[in-house]
Amino acid sequence: MKLKNIYQGKVVSLSVLDLVLPNGVRSKVEVVGHPGGAAVLPVFPNGDILLLRQYRACLKRYIWEIPAGRLEKGEAPRQAVLRELQEETGFKARSIKKILSVWTTPGFCQEVIHLFVAKGLTLGNCLREQDEIIETHRFSAQKIKQMLKSGKIQDSKTLVALLFYFRNL
Amino acid sequence: MKLKNIYQGKVVSLSVLDLVLPNGVRSKVEVVGHPGGAAVLPVFPNGDILLLRQYRACLKRYIWEIPAGRLEKGEAPRQAVLRELQEETGFKARSIKKILSVWTTPGFCQEVIHLFVAKGLTLGNCLREQDEIIETHRFSAQKIKQMLKSGKIQDSKTLVALLFYFRNL
Repeated sequence: MKLKNIYQGKVVSLSVLDLVLPNGVRSKVEVVGHPGGAAVLPVFPNGDILLLRQYRACLKRYIWEIPAGRLEKGEAPRQAVLRELQEETGFKARSIKKILSVWTTPGFCQEVIHLFVAKGLTLGNCLREQDEIIETHRFSAQKIKQMLKSGKIQDSKTLVALLFYFRNL
Repeated sequence: MKLKNIYQGKVVSLSVLDLVLPNGVRSKVEVVGHPGGAAVLPVFPNGDILLLRQYRACLKRYIWEIPAGRLEKGEAPRQAVLRELQEETGFKARSIKKILSVWTTPGFCQEVIHLFVAKGLTLGNCLREQDEIIETHRFSAQKIKQMLKSGKIQDSKTLVALLFYFRNL
């Protein structure tokens, strides 16, 4: 396997792998490298859920998301969600529980996002970075279900976390 | 807004945007460009579901997925899912129904995937590309629910399609 590094950025890197696949075919594969991330569904004692209305420059629009962020070097996913939850919303959580790990776009990117549910929320101070444009909104479970049914929530990690939380399996 | 093109590949492109955010902050944003894609959950008359066991070179492993692919130039999402379904599984579908459109990783990539459910399946010939390593597996709804609960399905588009299909909203 040969590796050609194209770009090393702040968030992502890009490489082209020249490799032999398990079926013997030689192929060049573009790979967007990513350190992995963690995301958290914050749930209040009455079942209300906290969502973010976040501006995504990449899409030139605001979308609904749960708090999330990249893992810092050496940081465990549980530490990352507690940190991102407080940075983005001001809330600390007394309990976090892992639900799933998700490949966001495995055709060309190595990103995995570890998903958690947070409970026992207490409000502290936000520590948002200046390029983060985020509003927090608290919704009833009923309202969230309406938003899911009507297609208003479109972010993949947020959809997986909410649909798994409300699952019927 | 200034745009610096870093790379134009077979699957993805990479640019750095130099822009002013809605809050007035100037920021450089890495953007992975993508033409968008479409994916489809194939459902048989008895409720069985078809999944792919697909090798992802980017992750160096096999994962469970639904049939999916990039939109070709000028191609509508409905056309793309019918094409990809047949190419990857051999099945034609008499009925496809849109469920959701999903941003897979909106922090740094413009990819949107349009999700459909396909019914009325009839088997024809596969037309896989030589760098696609895919097996098709037919499972009962009960087995799929077990796979979801136990974390065996980890691809985001597949999770959203299945969890939305089995939703309790």
